[in-house]
Amino acid sequence: MRPNDPRAVRSRDAILAAARELLRDHGPAAVTHQRVAELAGVGRATVYRHWARTEQLLLDAMASSDLPYFKDPPTPVRPWLFRQLRGMADELAHPEAVAVTVTLMHGAFGDAQLARQRDGSTAAIVERIGAALDLAVATGELPERPVPADAAARLIGPLVWRATMQIGVPVTDDFLDRLLDGVWLG
Amino acid sequence: MRPNDPRAVRSRDAILAAARELLRDHGPAAVTHQRVAELAGVGRATVYRHWARTEQLLLDAMASSDLPYFKDPPTPVRPWLFRQLRGMADELAHPEAVAVTVTLMHGAFGDAQLARQRDGSTAAIVERIGAALDLAVATGELPERPVPADAAARLIGPLVWRATMQIGVPVTDDFLDRLLDGVWLG
Repeated sequence: MRPNDPRAVRSRDAILAAARELLRDHGPAAVTHQRVAELAGVGRATVYRHWARTEQLLLDAMASSDLPYFKDPPTPVRPWLFRQLRGMADELAHPEAVAVTVTLMHGAFGDAQLARQRDGSTAAIVERIGAALDLAVATGELPERPVPADAAARLIGPLVWRATMQIGVPVTDDFLDRLLDGVWLG
Repeated sequence: MRPNDPRAVRSRDAILAAARELLRDHGPAAVTHQRVAELAGVGRATVYRHWARTEQLLLDAMASSDLPYFKDPPTPVRPWLFRQLRGMADELAHPEAVAVTVTLMHGAFGDAQLARQRDGSTAAIVERIGAALDLAVATGELPERPVPADAAARLIGPLVWRATMQIGVPVTDDFLDRLLDGVWLG
């Protein structure tokens, strides 16, 4: 079957839609060949033919998804930020989520499209964290506005470093609280 | 020339020694095929034959090197920690240093030897930062001892995240001070 064969295009689209749905509703760990094939109504071999590696499928699904992290902050902001960080740390406890993160980091060094995806993902996170901090300042919860790019690096950097370099060390609630303290204290 | 040919072993050893020397004295960005070849007294083609990619040579040189980061803290500890973080951030501004970091992160997911190298590198950093914080507590500079694994993640995680995901955003001295504030304030 050729790549432009209408059946190949249809199965590719169905697989990608299924991967996006699993990613949105159940997180990166749910995007396995088995579950994607079931949801897309195709055989596992078809998924493998289009995407030999799960993390590439996950990257493509992420590229065309709007990930829910740090979106639409309510007040009070801090407990919500805590829950967002908790959710991200729990996701990063799954090897699949770590694999897609390091694949994006690594691949972006030789691939302009992946580099754009990496930069877009970072820009979205920084913008959303900035909006959340603005809300916290506007409601008097936070005395002064931190630099969003710095706050994002201080909140997310330690989680990603732990997931990629400090494997197996759990992210406790206390650790997350201290990350937030660092941003809150300026 | 076969891999076990005495001349191949000699040139391999000379290349690795040269790479270690450049790494120790000038940092990861200095470990180029050209400079390694000159220092080892071999042709560039010989370096390419043994290590087609710079980051693999750099990884091998790092595996058998004792990197200087966070080693032998003096008092007062905090300005020294600041300088160590400054040095690490400046290194991570070089694409070569970032490449070797993400190659290690990425490669370690499918390679037990690289996983050991990653874990050893993290353990050394955590142990050294722990020793520095112990010294700061012993001399009254720091009121209570932070968990070394958490302090390491909070100091280094943001630098690595910025170097790999937030490319081009400079690490200012003020940013480093705030990272240290976060650890100092507990």
